[in-house]
Amino acid sequence: MTVKNAFYAQSGGVTAVINASAAGVIETARQHPDRIGKVYAGRNGIIGALTEDLIDTSLESAENIAALRHTPSGAFGSCRYKLKSLEANRAEYERLIEVFKAHDIGYFFYNGGGDSADTCLKVSQLAETMGYPIQAIHVPKTVDNDLPITDCCPGFGSVAKYVATSIREAGYDVASMSATSTKVFILEVMGRHAGWITAACGLASEAEGEAPHILLFPEIEFDEAAFLARVDECVKTHGYCVIGVSEGIKNKAGKFLSESGLTDAFGHAQLGGVAPTIANLVRDKLGYKYHWAVADYLQRAARHIASKVDVDQAYALGQAAVRVALEGKNAIMPAIRRLEDAPYSWDIIEAPLKDVANVEKFMPRDFITDDGFHITDACRQYLSPLIQGEDIPPFKNGLPDYVRLQNLPVERKLAPFKV
Amino acid sequence: MTVKNAFYAQSGGVTAVINASAAGVIETARQHPDRIGKVYAGRNGIIGALTEDLIDTSLESAENIAALRHTPSGAFGSCRYKLKSLEANRAEYERLIEVFKAHDIGYFFYNGGGDSADTCLKVSQLAETMGYPIQAIHVPKTVDNDLPITDCCPGFGSVAKYVATSIREAGYDVASMSATSTKVFILEVMGRHAGWITAACGLASEAEGEAPHILLFPEIEFDEAAFLARVDECVKTHGYCVIGVSEGIKNKAGKFLSESGLTDAFGHAQLGGVAPTIANLVRDKLGYKYHWAVADYLQRAARHIASKVDVDQAYALGQAAVRVALEGKNAIMPAIRRLEDAPYSWDIIEAPLKDVANVEKFMPRDFITDDGFHITDACRQYLSPLIQGEDIPPFKNGLPDYVRLQNLPVERKLAPFKV
Repeated sequence: MTVKNAFYAQSGGVTAVINASAAGVIETARQHPDRIGKVYAGRNGIIGALTEDLIDTSLESAENIAALRHTPSGAFGSCRYKLKSLEANRAEYERLIEVFKAHDIGYFFYNGGGDSADTCLKVSQLAETMGYPIQAIHVPKTVDNDLPITDCCPGFGSVAKYVATSIREAGYDVASMSATSTKVFILEVMGRHAGWITAACGLASEAEGEAPHILLFPEIEFDEAAFLARVDECVKTHGYCVIGVSEGIKNKAGKFLSESGLTDAFGHAQLGGVAPTIANLVRDKLGYKYHWAVADYLQRAARHIASKVDVDQAYALGQAAVRVALEGKNAIMPAIRRLEDAPYSWDIIEAPLKDVANVEKFMPRDFITDDGFHITDACRQYLSPLIQGEDIPPFKNGLPDYVRLQNLPVERKLAPFKV
Repeated sequence: MTVKNAFYAQSGGVTAVINASAAGVIETARQHPDRIGKVYAGRNGIIGALTEDLIDTSLESAENIAALRHTPSGAFGSCRYKLKSLEANRAEYERLIEVFKAHDIGYFFYNGGGDSADTCLKVSQLAETMGYPIQAIHVPKTVDNDLPITDCCPGFGSVAKYVATSIREAGYDVASMSATSTKVFILEVMGRHAGWITAACGLASEAEGEAPHILLFPEIEFDEAAFLARVDECVKTHGYCVIGVSEGIKNKAGKFLSESGLTDAFGHAQLGGVAPTIANLVRDKLGYKYHWAVADYLQRAARHIASKVDVDQAYALGQAAVRVALEGKNAIMPAIRRLEDAPYSWDIIEAPLKDVANVEKFMPRDFITDDGFHITDACRQYLSPLIQGEDIPPFKNGLPDYVRLQNLPVERKLAPFKV
C-alpha cells in the first residue's frame, strides 16, 4: 500500500491532556509503518504548515512520546489562527497544498476546538476544491466542553476535577475562618459562553450546605439584587458563602461584567477579573470580609490533578483518529459516546465534521436550577463520570516531571511564506 | 499521676496540614489516658476558650481523627483574635482561668503562627501571673514560613509545592501559546512581608529559560523600569515570560502596589490584586498579551498536592507538643531542626516561646539574586527538601475525600462571656 506522511497540529487554548491525544496519534501511527511514514507536527499549529515549520516527531524517543500522556500544554506549540474561507484567502490553501506535496503528506490531524474543526473541514475539502488528495481528521479538544455530538471534550474533565477540588478545598478553608474573618470566597473560572466549568464547581457540593453555595453561569443574566440576597442568606444560614463564577457572566445590558477590551484572533473578547468585581460588590453592599481567586491558566494546565477518564479519552481519540484515517475516511471527528452513567462506560463514534464545525453546545437549561444559582441532579449525573479516577504524573525533585521534546525541524524545501 | 484535660485550638490563617498537627496532638494524647483525660478543642480558636465553646474530641472516632491528617483547613474553626496584654485586658485572662478550672484543663496546645505564639506565651505565664498552673505548648503553623528557630513552618512546604507545581504547569501552557497569543503570565501568591512563597515558585525553574523567569519579592522594592526591561528581554529571548509575584510587593514610597484598604484583626492590611496591576503595566508599557491568576486560598488549602515532608512534620510537631507537655515543660514550641539537606533529614528540638513570639523571620538577602528577580542556589538548597514527596489524599466520587468532624459541644458550666 502507499505510504504517506502525516501532519499533526494543536490549535487554540491548550489543555492538561491535549498531549495525551498527541501521544495517541503518534504511537498509533508508529504501529503502521506500511501506511504512515513520519508524523510531522506543525510548530505552533497550522502556522507550522503554512510556514513549512515542521517538527520531525520520528526523532523523539518512544519514552518521550509516551511521556506526552502525562505532560500538560501543547508540546509542539499551539496557535490562535483561523483559516479564512477559500474565496477570501486562496493563497493560504495553495500554500498548504504546496507544503503537503513537498513533504508527501496524505493525512492531516488537527487537534482543537470548534474553530479548529472549521479549519479541519476546509482542509478536508482540498481534494474536492483544489484537487489535492488528503484525509483530514479532527481530534476534539477544548476545556470549554462546547463541541457538539461528543459526550464531552478532552481537557474539560480535568478542568472540572481541578475546579471542583479547588473550590472544595477553599470551602473548607473559609468555613474555618468565617467566625472572625473571611465570610465570602469567590473563585473565577473559565468558560467564555458556556457554563460547563462553572457547573463543574458544583460537584464539590455533595450535601446541603457544602461549598460552593452559589454558581454564576454565563447562561444566566446576572441579577445583582437576587445574588446579594442569596449571599446574605447563605452567610446567615451557614456562616459563610462560597461562589463559583464564570469569567463570562453578563449584566442585563448583555455586557460582560469584566471586560479587558482585548480580543483574541477569533474576535472573542479576552476576559478576566470578574471575581474582584463580584468581591467589591459583596463588600460595598453587604460589608462581608471576602477573598477571591482567579484560576486562569492554572485550571487548564493542572495535569497533576487530571481526571483519569479525561486522559484515557484524550488518548483514545488520538488513536481513533489514526484508525479512521487508515480506514480511508475523511472529514471526521472521532467522538465520545456515553453508554452508561454509572459506572461510566463509553465508546468512540465518528462524527461528520460538517456537523461539528462552528456549532457550539450550550448547557441545557435543565442542568441549572430554576433559581439559576446551582446545578441540578441531571447535571451531576452528566458531569460526575467525567472527573472519575486519578492519573498522577511522575514526580521528580518534588515536582511533576513533564517532558520537553527536542522538536527538531524538518528540512525546508520551499520558499518562505508570510502569514 | 494526676489526670488533666487538654485544650487544643487552631489560630490564624489555616493550612493544608494544620489538621495533621491536630491529629498528632489528639492521637498522642489518647495514648496517655493516665495523664491526659479528654482533649477539648476550642471552637474557632481561643474564642472557644473565652466563650466556653469547647468541642469534645473524645466523641470522634479514631478513623475520623486519623482522617484529619489528610484534610486541609482547621477542623475546629480558627480565629483571628489576639489576646491583649494582661494589663490591657485582665478580664480575658481571668475568664480563661475560669474556663480551664471548670473543665479541669492543665494542658494548653495552641496551633498557630507568630501572633498565636504571643498568645500562647501569655497563657504559659498564667501560673506565674495569676497563680493557675497550666502548661502551654505552641504548635507551629504558618504558610508564611516566618517563625524563627524552626527550620520551616508546617503549611509552608505544601504551599511551596503547590505554587511551584502550578507555575510550572502554567509555564508550559504559556510556552505553547506564546507564538500567536499570550506572552506574559503572572501568578500572584501569598506572603505579606516575607517572600518565602514567592521564592518557592522559583523551584519550578530548574534550567536556564524555564518558567518562572521573574520573581517579585516583598523584600525588594519594586522598580518598574528594571522590571519592564527584564520582561521585554525575557519575551525577546524565550518567546514568553512567566512571573511570580508576592501580594506584598511595595513601590518606592513603601506603599503596597495593590491595597484593598481593609485590615485584619491584627491590623495587617488585607492585600490582593497585585497580579492585575502588574498585568496592566505590562499591557500599557510593553503591549504584550497577558494572562494572570491569583491563587489566594487555593494555595494554602491545596491538600491534594501537599508535600509529604510537610505533612510528616506537621504531624510530628503535634506529637512532640504532647510529649514535651508530658515531660512537664511549659512555654515551649517544638521546632524542626535540619540535620542534612540531601537527603533531607530533620529532628525536633524545643524552642523557648519567649524567643519565638513576635519575631518574624525574613528571607536572607543571599537567597535572592543580586538583581532581585530570582532565587539563588542557597535558596534552592534550603527550599527543595521542603516540597519532597507526595501524600495524595483518598478520593471519592472523583474528589478528595476530606473529613468533617461532628464537633459536639462540651456542656457549659459557666455564665456567658462576651468577646
